[in-house]
Amino acid sequence: MDSIVRQSSKLCPFVKRAASSPTFVHSLQDRGGISTQLVGKCPVMHKVIREYASTSSVSKSAEAVPEKEKDIISPVENSSSAEKSFDYYGLFEDELLAKKRDKSYRFFNNINRLAKNFPMAHRKLEEDKVTVWCSNDYLALSKQPEVIAKMKLVLDKYGAGSGGTRNIAGHNKHTLQLESEIASLHKKEASLVFSSCFVANDAVISLLGSKLKDLIIFSDELNHASMIVGIKHAYKTKHIFKHNNLEDLEKMLQMYPKNQPKLIAFESVYSMNGSVSDISKICDLAEKYGALTFLDEVHSVGLYGPHGAGVAEHFDFDTHLVNGVNKPSNGVKTVMDRVDMITGTLGKSFGTVGGYVAGSGQLIDWIRSYAPGFIFTTTLPPSVMAGASEAIKYSKTHINLRTSQQLHTQYVKDELARIGVPVLPNPSHIVPVLIGNPDLAKQASDLLMDKHKIYVQAINFPTVARGTERLRITPTPGHNIELCDILIAAIDDVFNELNLPRVKDWEAQGGFMGIGTTNNTERLWTDEQLKLTNADLNKNVHASAVDEIVYSSGVSI
Amino acid sequence: MDSIVRQSSKLCPFVKRAASSPTFVHSLQDRGGISTQLVGKCPVMHKVIREYASTSSVSKSAEAVPEKEKDIISPVENSSSAEKSFDYYGLFEDELLAKKRDKSYRFFNNINRLAKNFPMAHRKLEEDKVTVWCSNDYLALSKQPEVIAKMKLVLDKYGAGSGGTRNIAGHNKHTLQLESEIASLHKKEASLVFSSCFVANDAVISLLGSKLKDLIIFSDELNHASMIVGIKHAYKTKHIFKHNNLEDLEKMLQMYPKNQPKLIAFESVYSMNGSVSDISKICDLAEKYGALTFLDEVHSVGLYGPHGAGVAEHFDFDTHLVNGVNKPSNGVKTVMDRVDMITGTLGKSFGTVGGYVAGSGQLIDWIRSYAPGFIFTTTLPPSVMAGASEAIKYSKTHINLRTSQQLHTQYVKDELARIGVPVLPNPSHIVPVLIGNPDLAKQASDLLMDKHKIYVQAINFPTVARGTERLRITPTPGHNIELCDILIAAIDDVFNELNLPRVKDWEAQGGFMGIGTTNNTERLWTDEQLKLTNADLNKNVHASAVDEIVYSSGVSI
Repeated sequence: MDSIVRQSSKLCPFVKRAASSPTFVHSLQDRGGISTQLVGKCPVMHKVIREYASTSSVSKSAEAVPEKEKDIISPVENSSSAEKSFDYYGLFEDELLAKKRDKSYRFFNNINRLAKNFPMAHRKLEEDKVTVWCSNDYLALSKQPEVIAKMKLVLDKYGAGSGGTRNIAGHNKHTLQLESEIASLHKKEASLVFSSCFVANDAVISLLGSKLKDLIIFSDELNHASMIVGIKHAYKTKHIFKHNNLEDLEKMLQMYPKNQPKLIAFESVYSMNGSVSDISKICDLAEKYGALTFLDEVHSVGLYGPHGAGVAEHFDFDTHLVNGVNKPSNGVKTVMDRVDMITGTLGKSFGTVGGYVAGSGQLIDWIRSYAPGFIFTTTLPPSVMAGASEAIKYSKTHINLRTSQQLHTQYVKDELARIGVPVLPNPSHIVPVLIGNPDLAKQASDLLMDKHKIYVQAINFPTVARGTERLRITPTPGHNIELCDILIAAIDDVFNELNLPRVKDWEAQGGFMGIGTTNNTERLWTDEQLKLTNADLNKNVHASAVDEIVYSSGVSI
Repeated sequence: MDSIVRQSSKLCPFVKRAASSPTFVHSLQDRGGISTQLVGKCPVMHKVIREYASTSSVSKSAEAVPEKEKDIISPVENSSSAEKSFDYYGLFEDELLAKKRDKSYRFFNNINRLAKNFPMAHRKLEEDKVTVWCSNDYLALSKQPEVIAKMKLVLDKYGAGSGGTRNIAGHNKHTLQLESEIASLHKKEASLVFSSCFVANDAVISLLGSKLKDLIIFSDELNHASMIVGIKHAYKTKHIFKHNNLEDLEKMLQMYPKNQPKLIAFESVYSMNGSVSDISKICDLAEKYGALTFLDEVHSVGLYGPHGAGVAEHFDFDTHLVNGVNKPSNGVKTVMDRVDMITGTLGKSFGTVGGYVAGSGQLIDWIRSYAPGFIFTTTLPPSVMAGASEAIKYSKTHINLRTSQQLHTQYVKDELARIGVPVLPNPSHIVPVLIGNPDLAKQASDLLMDKHKIYVQAINFPTVARGTERLRITPTPGHNIELCDILIAAIDDVFNELNLPRVKDWEAQGGFMGIGTTNNTERLWTDEQLKLTNADLNKNVHASAVDEIVYSSGVSI
């Protein structure tokens, strides 16, 4: 028996039978001869076998079942405990206990972030104030007076909710304006708004899987859970390439003919490491091998590029700075132009909630027309969409938000390095302080909160791999140098009190042992870019592009 | 060859080979002898076959691939068009054209619902006003001044967005209050809020599938897309039972031993027909056969039961009326108590956006701890959660919203019957006017809008089956008799102008031909219940239950 038969014998009960005896076909009639458990793994054969079983051992019930159901009936098994129900609540309890045992059980902190006292929040009691150092409100736009004022105006005029799905009473001028604003931000023809970017990623990737026969998906190993879920729901062959490793990606791409449908799914900034992908080179590979590109800019919109469109915009910084909100007129194809789909969130830098995908008009119209996660859900409230539009508009024209965020980040990274606190090196705005133990990470977080009135959530499994637990610090424009100094001193104290490993301790063990390793740690924002002002940014902007853009999705009549 | 072999031969290429020749195992080595397309359908065997192909025809590339990837490599196929990329955008275009051809392409209407002029909205131009007759803002709570005022207060104090996931900076007193309010509404120990009920249904059902080995799912054939998607993502054997047909359900349940995990997924009010399930009898079956019950009350929360907890509450109307917001003290188990999981939305009757599941503390904590669709997404804005809490609280104490909604519904149904307009009979608040043709349904909707300034969206595939297209009318407390009369006259005119089939025309063809058939069409709200006032409702309520309820999910420290 050669290797292929050996392997298939391990996996497939039919091949195994066939390999061991040429009379296996007849033995199919003897259900006892085949493990029901194994057969159950085959989505094709289990139906046939189960029908066979049901028509023999439980023939009475099987006969009573309507014709169309016949092919999905499973057998009654002989079991002495068959008279008791399954212990569902016992299972829930066991699985909760397992989480408590391995320290991945989560305790949520009651954190009420105060708009007029950013970045402060109160805990359960209003007088118990803490400084928040871990929110994803990266630009503090959730407290921007222009955003809040707009939302209140819209609430008064158009009420609390949208009242329906986009098809039934839930499509309005706020969706049109927001989708135009997003399309304009990414210089794409159209965009589509979802309940969240988790939903956008899941819905778009799974739709591509359901519609593109023979699609092969190539996914960065550090992709966010929402993409992993979308890929799972795509029901297609997938390849996981090593994080940001283009050689690995190319080896996988070249296994397939150019005309076979392919999707490369990746992020620009990976949120827990702060590493950044080389979007341009991934687009080169996509072109060479005939793949669609799906780029998640969730943790970079607002923060990179002269107008905050993300890392794809940042890679052509000067071009976009000169051209303002317009596309380059000389026909130059920018990195943003080359990416097929960009997804982003309205819930982090843009301070509200919701997610989106931007791309060609046709692509967006196709997603709009076919994705259940878009079609069958209530539209976001008009006030939320108006607030998000306002936040994007404000961010576009205020480069100082981005530069001050970067300067505060750099200060925190430099100061933590000075005192030997281990920060995973990266070129972005994320400050991941490595702890490497779930219990100690929680203790550190609790101590910061209780002793220092600083809130930095401990990040544990499943958000990061076990053994790589960390404190993830996210400075904003509102975290000034004075607050940074208080944070640094507090972290120093916590590292002392809990005797947490410092850089020298990790180095004694051989470094970070691969945690958060990235090829490139050079800051995305150059010193020259960090000197730019709002006036530099806006001298080429004559008007908001929103009313002018070609809007081809969400046809409005 | 007996029947089982014949059937498997059709489905499985291996069995087919085996049946036709005892030497089939050797032929596996000859890839050309097996249809790649057929092999690709088997999730087990396609990997093995593909590896075999890759190690022979493309051996060089295969060798270069890392060990862990080896088992998911597909073959390079011989193809003369292999040098061209797949035509992705051509496919998008073709699929959009197909939708346009079969009239399922959707045109969204720009509808801006006016809070101070409910149920009016303006279209693109502010002066172009229409009456909205199809929104799911069933109780008009999205324009309720108390709701809007609360949202504005929270916006001012806590800003536009939550700033993070529930684990990272996005858990706050508004989530705690809202989840307590929901738990109290359904008299459950706990609840968990999601971005939407689409997400809640998908996340909870798929989690049950991933955690309960050998789970069998039983699903009503008219279940909403969100449950269908969740069931698909559960990757488990499913049985679709005939709509509201308990005999059919029982036949399927009795095929399995009692100790095998089972889930019965169903709705209380089916939104496009308005039919209602017999929750109590489904609970009887669940107990008898050892199944968990998953009840979607999306289209009934706010509208049924003395306090608007839904149809499950309505079935014990008097008990809940007497006990107010407390559980019956005599130990009586109500229908609500018997259902394991109730999901609902904040985006319809409760006027905002978001979804939830309510159940035992342990169950909810388990979902909180394991469901990716909950864990990895940004929390709803504090103002939205506060608005939803306020809406639930308001609804709980205002039975007049429910009774006037029912009275307006009854008036519309009676008047449409009087003029012979076909309405699918049902016991609920939905008024589905049958058209039965996608083109005519759109023409009817357009004519209502353009000629009569009335907005009723045409409902087409995939929301309803092809050939059952309809106009779905949803009266609210704000649609008074004067507005109802205008609607009736407009529909009469549209039916005349387009020569749409009336009841007599359908009867001449033999009735509605099974569309929207339901066993029970008796109104859920009795005449006696419709006479109740807010004072009758609230005489047993001494305080809000919210601060008192046992809250066991979303542990707050």
